[in-house]
Amino acid sequence: MRIVENLVTFRLRLKNSPGTLGKALTTIGKSGGSMGNIQIIKADKDFKIRDLAVYVSTDEQVKEIVNTLSALGKDHVEVISVKDKVFELHEKGKISISNRIGITTFEDLSRVYTPGVAKVCKAIQKRPELAREYTIIKNTVAVVTDGTAILGLGDIGPVAGMPVMEGKAMLFKAFGNIDAFPILLNTRDTDEIVKTMVNISSTFGGINLEDISAPRCFEIERRLKEILPVPVFHDDQHGTAVVCLAGLLNALKVVNKTIENISAVISGAGAAGISIAHMLIHAGAKDIVVCDTSGIIYKGRTTNMNLEKEALAQITNQKNERGTIADAMVGKDVFIGVSGPNSITRDMVKTMQKDSIVFAMANPNPEIEPDLIEDIARIVATGRSDYHNQINNVLCFPGLFRGALDSGATTINDTMNMAAAYAIAHAIEEEHLSEDYIIPSVFNEKVHKNVARAVADAAMKTGVARRNIFS
Amino acid sequence: MRIVENLVTFRLRLKNSPGTLGKALTTIGKSGGSMGNIQIIKADKDFKIRDLAVYVSTDEQVKEIVNTLSALGKDHVEVISVKDKVFELHEKGKISISNRIGITTFEDLSRVYTPGVAKVCKAIQKRPELAREYTIIKNTVAVVTDGTAILGLGDIGPVAGMPVMEGKAMLFKAFGNIDAFPILLNTRDTDEIVKTMVNISSTFGGINLEDISAPRCFEIERRLKEILPVPVFHDDQHGTAVVCLAGLLNALKVVNKTIENISAVISGAGAAGISIAHMLIHAGAKDIVVCDTSGIIYKGRTTNMNLEKEALAQITNQKNERGTIADAMVGKDVFIGVSGPNSITRDMVKTMQKDSIVFAMANPNPEIEPDLIEDIARIVATGRSDYHNQINNVLCFPGLFRGALDSGATTINDTMNMAAAYAIAHAIEEEHLSEDYIIPSVFNEKVHKNVARAVADAAMKTGVARRNIFS
Repeated sequence: MRIVENLVTFRLRLKNSPGTLGKALTTIGKSGGSMGNIQIIKADKDFKIRDLAVYVSTDEQVKEIVNTLSALGKDHVEVISVKDKVFELHEKGKISISNRIGITTFEDLSRVYTPGVAKVCKAIQKRPELAREYTIIKNTVAVVTDGTAILGLGDIGPVAGMPVMEGKAMLFKAFGNIDAFPILLNTRDTDEIVKTMVNISSTFGGINLEDISAPRCFEIERRLKEILPVPVFHDDQHGTAVVCLAGLLNALKVVNKTIENISAVISGAGAAGISIAHMLIHAGAKDIVVCDTSGIIYKGRTTNMNLEKEALAQITNQKNERGTIADAMVGKDVFIGVSGPNSITRDMVKTMQKDSIVFAMANPNPEIEPDLIEDIARIVATGRSDYHNQINNVLCFPGLFRGALDSGATTINDTMNMAAAYAIAHAIEEEHLSEDYIIPSVFNEKVHKNVARAVADAAMKTGVARRNIFS
Repeated sequence: MRIVENLVTFRLRLKNSPGTLGKALTTIGKSGGSMGNIQIIKADKDFKIRDLAVYVSTDEQVKEIVNTLSALGKDHVEVISVKDKVFELHEKGKISISNRIGITTFEDLSRVYTPGVAKVCKAIQKRPELAREYTIIKNTVAVVTDGTAILGLGDIGPVAGMPVMEGKAMLFKAFGNIDAFPILLNTRDTDEIVKTMVNISSTFGGINLEDISAPRCFEIERRLKEILPVPVFHDDQHGTAVVCLAGLLNALKVVNKTIENISAVISGAGAAGISIAHMLIHAGAKDIVVCDTSGIIYKGRTTNMNLEKEALAQITNQKNERGTIADAMVGKDVFIGVSGPNSITRDMVKTMQKDSIVFAMANPNPEIEPDLIEDIARIVATGRSDYHNQINNVLCFPGLFRGALDSGATTINDTMNMAAAYAIAHAIEEEHLSEDYIIPSVFNEKVHKNVARAVADAAMKTGVARRNIFS
């Protein structure tokens, strides 16, 4: 369960004699590979070419399999190619543009292009709001990155980040029926990014900022929200915070605590950590302490601060705690990690309050392996799909944008984020909640629809909607 | 033939009594509407609701039909709604994003998104050229406009121009299997446009500039070509010129003249006119005169000039002709119009050389109606699909970009444009050429493939290709 398996296809040229395939399979098995499909690609009287699909855990295993197979001797087994399923799926990219109408006759042409198209243009010119009806703009979201904080990989640049942006666009489509398109930025300059996005903003009904490093991401989002009349959302901040809060609300029900009375420590004061702190406070939490690599953040701390942390110091840590993350965790009800792998220990968790809740959400490797604390923490959640209780942003952004776009929301505000969090939490009925089931699956379609509806509703209630989707 | 017909659906509530439908149909017929399908939507004992599809020529006709139907009296016929087929086809826009791989399980998720996607990102980070294999970038073209010169509609703004950009994207897909995505620019400032496109250029394998007004379009294209290592193409200039040259080459075969020996007048010194002049010269033409609204352009003219026209004056009009468009046409073999509707007369065409060729390409209404000159001009072509000999840009850009992308071309140069023109011309075998068949249909698939191949070949021969698609 712990290791994400990967499917690799080995194309082998095998001697046409009894036992050769068996030898190959044994060799693969010894290297820890688990067999999938086996198919004959070609055969003659001396040799058979076969594709062997093998589940492996690491790239080292693949190398070992190739080496041990090769050691059997070219006369018996030759490795022709090794294809990784993940790379295969990425060939030519993961999304494409489709025509919603076929073009097979001149009549078709004259309707979707000149001369017919002209009257649609003129209609929009006269009544710009018709662009919502007759163009893709309303349903289109830009997935924007400068490549500075791609997943846990860091600053790998926008082009290397493209597979993530395409993946994100897929999720928008699959779970929100939203047409999302990646925009890769060649600049890291805050002013330039803001200006560029403003310059192309008419193309889109919304903007999803993705994997832009802190603290620039805060200013970029703030300024774009001020300037643009469409939803702007930095998923790494608010998406994570929304889903985290959803999980926490349900976790607190299971352990019979209320958010107003808990004490919580957040490890990590980047995009996600800061947004989670704000969101928890918004939801009623009163006793929150945030730690970064320099330990607890407090009013008047002088080292390793920035504008966002200063602001955080004002609204968190009312007891003026100081010290390390270990100090911070003593007696706390809740630990929320959005920092780095293996950054807390079993001993630290031991010092927490009874019925402790540990959200170790660092990606891809959590702050502590759940197995290490399952006997001492009451509830454990991570960001991974291979543990229970996955705190997954995909639960939020497709439905959130769906609701914002459908209601013609001019922005995404705190009330809409909160509505999304509650909608996600409520997707599990209270009697079904348990220690290992505090958050719904992303494949639970109800979640995305509920989120969309709740967000649209919140947009209308807060006066930022331009149309009432329920009327 | 002359008027592009449009399909309008009238939803009528008709009294359930003999003769009511007949009366409605007669009324529609009297207003000049031609009947298409008739369908029952709903019926009860008193009324039937029917959809009547009607072919009409003008919006006035639609109004007249509504008025005369209404005049029959609400008790007999009520017009519930009037839906224009063109608007119906444009509902929600004409393109969408598709996922190339389904997402139905956590395993799918883990391959197209985290954690699987990380290794594709890392591979691209290490070897950036892999982005061609594993992302959409290579096959993706931006269709970029600032909305200043949309079709013949002029400066209607980028949002009102979106239906054209979406239509263009559809054509890229339908005829070149290219994923094109519109980018609407909110700025008209040349520097800003260049900077914005440079900032987002990594997203795309090529850039198609569309409907940007002259003379800014020249500088924008030139600077983007200088800066970016991918094909940049202003279709209104070069696309038009390529297809115009293709048609002219074939027309000259029909009338047995050679491009080196003809005299030609080009009416219009905007994006298209200037590019056509350059292209004709590149193809061997020696005697070309260009006219604008101030008449013939000549060396030393001082009124209504700009940098591009100055340059044009240097390489055209070697005989230093002066005067009006009427003066310019006297004794010419070829007239090429990329100006405005009804800007030349039958009398002017009469003054041309024997076997004259008239390309009246103003959109949507030509410089002169072909019917008016079919007895005096040997060959007539327009930009419209409802006449024969349509000079249609769609013949060029899908194949041109296909060839450029497949060959990894770093630019689009004159040689590639010339190759495209010859490939289009050669799509009709010489023995099949005739006065009314000088240019192939866009639905002739061979054209696009031939253009792609010729352009890729030209890219390789001129050293701008990064890969040999034929090896």
